[in-house]
Amino acid sequence: MLEISEIFNAAAVLKEVARKTAIIPAPKLSSEADIYLKSENLQLTGSFKLRGAYYKISQLSDEEKARGVIACSAGNHAQGVALGAKHNGIKAVICLPAGAPISKVEATKSYGAEVVLVPGVYDDAYARALELQKEHGYSFVHPFDDPKVIAGQGTIGLEILEEMPDVEAVIVPIGGGGLISGVAFAIKCLRPDVKVYGVQSTGAPSMAASLKEGKLCHLNDVHTIADGIAVKEPGVNTFEMCNKYVDEVVTVTDDEIAAAILALIEQQKIVAEGAGAVSVAAAMFGKLPIKGKKVICLVSGGNIDVNTLSRVITRGLSKSGRNYTFIIDLADKPGQLSGVCSIVGSTGGNIISVTHERINSSSDINGCTIRLELETRDSEHVDEIRRALTEAGHKVLN
Amino acid sequence: MLEISEIFNAAAVLKEVARKTAIIPAPKLSSEADIYLKSENLQLTGSFKLRGAYYKISQLSDEEKARGVIACSAGNHAQGVALGAKHNGIKAVICLPAGAPISKVEATKSYGAEVVLVPGVYDDAYARALELQKEHGYSFVHPFDDPKVIAGQGTIGLEILEEMPDVEAVIVPIGGGGLISGVAFAIKCLRPDVKVYGVQSTGAPSMAASLKEGKLCHLNDVHTIADGIAVKEPGVNTFEMCNKYVDEVVTVTDDEIAAAILALIEQQKIVAEGAGAVSVAAAMFGKLPIKGKKVICLVSGGNIDVNTLSRVITRGLSKSGRNYTFIIDLADKPGQLSGVCSIVGSTGGNIISVTHERINSSSDINGCTIRLELETRDSEHVDEIRRALTEAGHKVLN
Repeated sequence: MLEISEIFNAAAVLKEVARKTAIIPAPKLSSEADIYLKSENLQLTGSFKLRGAYYKISQLSDEEKARGVIACSAGNHAQGVALGAKHNGIKAVICLPAGAPISKVEATKSYGAEVVLVPGVYDDAYARALELQKEHGYSFVHPFDDPKVIAGQGTIGLEILEEMPDVEAVIVPIGGGGLISGVAFAIKCLRPDVKVYGVQSTGAPSMAASLKEGKLCHLNDVHTIADGIAVKEPGVNTFEMCNKYVDEVVTVTDDEIAAAILALIEQQKIVAEGAGAVSVAAAMFGKLPIKGKKVICLVSGGNIDVNTLSRVITRGLSKSGRNYTFIIDLADKPGQLSGVCSIVGSTGGNIISVTHERINSSSDINGCTIRLELETRDSEHVDEIRRALTEAGHKVLN
Repeated sequence: MLEISEIFNAAAVLKEVARKTAIIPAPKLSSEADIYLKSENLQLTGSFKLRGAYYKISQLSDEEKARGVIACSAGNHAQGVALGAKHNGIKAVICLPAGAPISKVEATKSYGAEVVLVPGVYDDAYARALELQKEHGYSFVHPFDDPKVIAGQGTIGLEILEEMPDVEAVIVPIGGGGLISGVAFAIKCLRPDVKVYGVQSTGAPSMAASLKEGKLCHLNDVHTIADGIAVKEPGVNTFEMCNKYVDEVVTVTDDEIAAAILALIEQQKIVAEGAGAVSVAAAMFGKLPIKGKKVICLVSGGNIDVNTLSRVITRGLSKSGRNYTFIIDLADKPGQLSGVCSIVGSTGGNIISVTHERINSSSDINGCTIRLELETRDSEHVDEIRRALTEAGHKVLN
């Protein structure tokens, strides 16, 4: 059973390596509550995972350390274990599914870990890790369901209370539950009046479902842009701790998560991964009773693939009317396209791409269709351009 | 003439409102030097401009304060003046060119300033601001060429020396020169051994050219993605101070700036605008003699338009081989497209868009051309896919 003294011990050990990440005011993210961010995306390795992995490794016996550690992860945990092992001067083996993004494989290798690429999916990599563990006597570093790992993550709770003693609520992302178990335990031991809320993705609500059912639930399928918290089943320890120490768990949709990522970029100038932004999404979209309260959203990590980030931005832009694709039916005679372009130009729209096609079942046999992708200022600007096109006699189809 | 005591005074005044922004380790940005970032993009209003504007306004006489202030800016200075005026409880009028992005207009209004949209470009807005100043007796807050404004920006120099006494070089963006004048003056007064370097965009090298010529140069045309430092002519005061206190000024290209923005997102999880990233670009691309040194890159701001950010990411992805558009000549018979798609799928490429066209002057009369936009892992991955397509008999044109 975890004791609060162990979390203080973990904080002392982590002084050597983990950054005490800043608490950043974020007044524009909500008009209802007074929001601050605990920026673990600015942690070394880009996520909080370093804390638990490093503390776990530091507490192994000399004999265990001599044999080395093994872990299975395609993401933040891999980098945390690799760096933790490197700092402790011991061997680390990380099993990854073979299709893992090159960038994550390279980051893990750059911290000095031995990477084993296993054909198949996460479960195959996990099975292979267990085999290697048996073969070589490595210590297994679980990503969340281990009291030492939980104690390491709990140091974030201590930092929050130290840096902001008048905090009233803390909102924490949940995947397997290691982070929130540590944070909630630390906070409730020291300041039981402070609320601790958890957030999952609607596409992977394993802890939310388990708490509701009162027993561990296994999801067969998880699907969310917040891949860092796409966990099919909570841990035994973490389930028990969430049940005891967490006030409420809510879920947010992928669209809400994308909006939170975009808001963090635009308002706060920081990059969060999907899993890291769910806490902010919950605050932005009024999922929790935090009106008038001083609230910390824990932004747990920032390791988002740039291709994904680009898609999130594009989607966010189009949702807020700053990017729009018009489809227009044109009479197929000279000067039509130039007319459309000059109207768009005079209304301040910026053309990104044009597709002009003559073969289209919906248009007049003599007509043609153009798709016009524009950068726009906002939804009113889109309406203004639509009006100008219509008034000039063009048939806007959308 | 500026005295160091005034910068200490500015620091005392700014304690009320400005954030003491963090210095963040950035070991991955250069293998040659030990790089840290002074993160003024995380400053309130998203840029350092608040410091100078706030200090300037605080030092006005009661009579001047009663009449209010005026400024002309489409960007960070506008928000700095608006917030500075609000905190001092006085009226602010900001002239903006009418085409300014809605987001910047809204941000300026949100701090309580009166916004005057002037038809035309920046110079027209500036002329209108001077008219209004005469009419109403407002105090004009210059964006850079004012000793009080320079003193406010200089507080960043004090913070750097206080937080990192063993720093050896500081790299600072230059637009009009207000920021570097204050920072270089503070540093050279207190620690003349610390090098201070300036960076401009090759598309707007007004200070670099002026220093080289030994007199103020006026550029007729400036063009860069770093719009925050696209200044046609340095100030009289800032030119003199740069001449005296700055060790060297270099320039970076738009492509280098874009690469720096992307590196800050991927490695550091922070968002910089073009002007804010030029210091990092200079370090990344070896423009300065910093080998083996402990260096601070001043990231001056993060107010980048998200449409621009999206384009920067797309360009960066394609430069590093993580996005590629193949153009392929196909025989126009059934099954060809499906063959291509299955090859791409089996090599791990992710198709984003397909354009298939039969009318193309360069292809066989019975053939057709497809454009295949893919998400890829890196340049080797692109080569691998190209090889697989070629081996299967497809004619890859690029």
